[in-house]
Amino acid sequence: MTAVEPVRVGLLGCGTVGSALVELLDAERGAIAARAGVTLVIHRVAVRNRSRLRPSCLPTHVLTADASDVVTDPAVDVVVELIGGLEPARTLVTKALEAGKPVVTGNKELLAECGAALAEVAAGAGVDLLYEAAVGGAIPLIRPLRESLAGERIHRVMGIVNGTTNYILTRMSEEGASYADALAEAQSLGYAEADPTADVEGHDAAAKAAILASIAFGAEVVSADVHREGISGLDVADIAFARRRGYEVKLLAVAERAGWDGGGGGTGASGPGAGPDGGTIEPIAVRVHPAMVPADHPLASVRGSFNAVFVEGEAVGELMLYGRGAGGPPTAAAVLGDLIDAAHNLRSGSGGRIAVQGRARVVPMASLSSRYYVSIDVVDQPGVLAAVAGMFGEHSVSIRSMEQVGLSEEARLVFITHVALEADMQATLADLSGLAAVRRVGGLIRLVGSGPE
Amino acid sequence: MTAVEPVRVGLLGCGTVGSALVELLDAERGAIAARAGVTLVIHRVAVRNRSRLRPSCLPTHVLTADASDVVTDPAVDVVVELIGGLEPARTLVTKALEAGKPVVTGNKELLAECGAALAEVAAGAGVDLLYEAAVGGAIPLIRPLRESLAGERIHRVMGIVNGTTNYILTRMSEEGASYADALAEAQSLGYAEADPTADVEGHDAAAKAAILASIAFGAEVVSADVHREGISGLDVADIAFARRRGYEVKLLAVAERAGWDGGGGGTGASGPGAGPDGGTIEPIAVRVHPAMVPADHPLASVRGSFNAVFVEGEAVGELMLYGRGAGGPPTAAAVLGDLIDAAHNLRSGSGGRIAVQGRARVVPMASLSSRYYVSIDVVDQPGVLAAVAGMFGEHSVSIRSMEQVGLSEEARLVFITHVALEADMQATLADLSGLAAVRRVGGLIRLVGSGPE
Repeated sequence: MTAVEPVRVGLLGCGTVGSALVELLDAERGAIAARAGVTLVIHRVAVRNRSRLRPSCLPTHVLTADASDVVTDPAVDVVVELIGGLEPARTLVTKALEAGKPVVTGNKELLAECGAALAEVAAGAGVDLLYEAAVGGAIPLIRPLRESLAGERIHRVMGIVNGTTNYILTRMSEEGASYADALAEAQSLGYAEADPTADVEGHDAAAKAAILASIAFGAEVVSADVHREGISGLDVADIAFARRRGYEVKLLAVAERAGWDGGGGGTGASGPGAGPDGGTIEPIAVRVHPAMVPADHPLASVRGSFNAVFVEGEAVGELMLYGRGAGGPPTAAAVLGDLIDAAHNLRSGSGGRIAVQGRARVVPMASLSSRYYVSIDVVDQPGVLAAVAGMFGEHSVSIRSMEQVGLSEEARLVFITHVALEADMQATLADLSGLAAVRRVGGLIRLVGSGPE
Repeated sequence: MTAVEPVRVGLLGCGTVGSALVELLDAERGAIAARAGVTLVIHRVAVRNRSRLRPSCLPTHVLTADASDVVTDPAVDVVVELIGGLEPARTLVTKALEAGKPVVTGNKELLAECGAALAEVAAGAGVDLLYEAAVGGAIPLIRPLRESLAGERIHRVMGIVNGTTNYILTRMSEEGASYADALAEAQSLGYAEADPTADVEGHDAAAKAAILASIAFGAEVVSADVHREGISGLDVADIAFARRRGYEVKLLAVAERAGWDGGGGGTGASGPGAGPDGGTIEPIAVRVHPAMVPADHPLASVRGSFNAVFVEGEAVGELMLYGRGAGGPPTAAAVLGDLIDAAHNLRSGSGGRIAVQGRARVVPMASLSSRYYVSIDVVDQPGVLAAVAGMFGEHSVSIRSMEQVGLSEEARLVFITHVALEADMQATLADLSGLAAVRRVGGLIRLVGSGPE
């Protein structure tokens, strides 16, 4: 296959990722043409500020301040959306698809909010909507899940999908840094924003969990469906305790079939299971929270700002895909892979093949089961331990191990439970907070697998 | 997209993987139709022995003993080749492609011998030749390398692609088992054949290295191009030594751009580098040999019979793809993903898009550089160490560290070198073997990265 005519790209946004893409295309144009049989040319670039410095290989005349100009330009064959956020991205992407232009985007907010609606527009127009860059940056995730595993019954997808929080947790675990110090360090390195809320409270991970769940289970999941807990309530002592017991603490995005148990017990969702009749939509559970991962689990060795997604399927067994989750060049590489694919499919008229199967049935968090770690600071006086332990029993939460740390007026009690129902555990925590001798109930962490305990 | 007419599959071979595929298709037919929009039906199955037990869901009338019947049957839309070996697989695959039928295969010997010629036949006929199952079983590798990284300048691909040897090495490292005991255990578990040569001497890994190199660098590499060393010469003491120094010993398949250094020094090939002008074919190095991998490298934590491939690229940085490298259901899952893809492309007439760029320029092993570990058994008498050390110096191989282990009449000297030229190291080893006081020169292991040393 040889390139006949170049494919003209309209780019919306030219920040870190956009600039990296422009430079990558410039450096690799010959190689791409030779290997993939397409020549990609940047035709129009919509930017907010035309006077900002751009890659030197980008001719000034392609710049425009009018984004809708780019999506309506009949000379633009493919649109790359890198402006982020809901609007005007949603309107622009919709317009482009309706005009028969494939769209490549890395916009996780947009996809986690209205990905299914946009996929329907794309399918209607017979063009591609591709978004490999939206989850896990450079890691090939979306394409493997959608294509390589197209015939696979996936049971669970479990990922470290936010590099900022993984960096912070790695520093807390390996260096004993406090949460505040590790966050400050992440900020000084540019891994965390001045306002770190989106990362540390799990909003970013929840959007990615929704996208992964939609792909893995073939039904629409949106951010609001995702139960979300962040890492800001974790103490370095909790993480040190986990490490001593043979676990690493990770912020996990988990999407799984309700009722599937994985054999190892633990975080398995225990909702109503459905039979393997492909037609109906089975209930799933989707959540983001800190988790204790056994040290010999492949996810435990994902350190620093790296990302990884661990997949469990009926036939494939266990898979893990690992790499750089963010940054200009890695994300641009993912966009470029999609661009080449879109260009091919545009040529052969074979785009837009993805079927949308309606809304997912997401089971409520309260109906799931897990083993739990929780730390409770109490006034150190006689009878307190009995009162606290009794509270677990009242709610049918069975204690597997208890340890007391600290010897002054205050003591910290650290509990690990047997598998318990989330609703029961939450009721236990609520009642514990009401006890006079309890100063703080903190650091709730769910355990993954059967583990070394 | 809804299924209009089923896609009829002709299957060549119905052993472990074939049977798993038949059962997977039967169990997931509805789900595949709903998610991927195609219905796959097993139409003809060629088997050597018609009386052998087959999956109960397979009607007897689809069985035939005549494989060429299957590839010429006009009712067969897609051919799956799972008989393995060169002939008759090569003839059958060629016939099927020439008849305009896409082919899905997991036959690594065939692909490593004449993959480029078959790809040309496929491109000529405008149909797909897909082989995700040939390397790394269920791990999505070929599609990510070919599609997600289509625009990427890949520097190096480094993989644990043989589960048998990784199982043996894991047992030797973690349990201190001898090579013979670990091999016997692998055989009793069905991980190793009665004649383990293909695995332990690296033939299987070399075929996979050739396939990975061809895909990663877009030029034909065959098995004979691959420098190959197995694990049968490794001693448990070598592996224990490596572990104490913070390394795991792995049998690695490595394909890299000659002249690329990766920043960490070490195993980087140092051949003549070429500029980044996509058109010309740059020289590459391809090899299989035991390697010392730093414990904090993602490949070091790949244990037991698991496989993983680590990719280093200009824009993506570091990626790793991990999972089950063998077994019926995992391999069948990879075949099924390809089948769905082939069915789609057949419908839209968009198959056979892969360009073949001619033979690779493979640089000879002697021109590469590495850091080396080597163990040398000597008679323990005065002057021997000086003589041995002197031999390294004569060939310009600089010693980084030396240790003596064992205290009886014989002593083992363990050396780690600075980066040296392969030709110089081999000359050193040859001369050492000629020294009267040297009993055995063994356990040559190359070091990956700069490592903890």
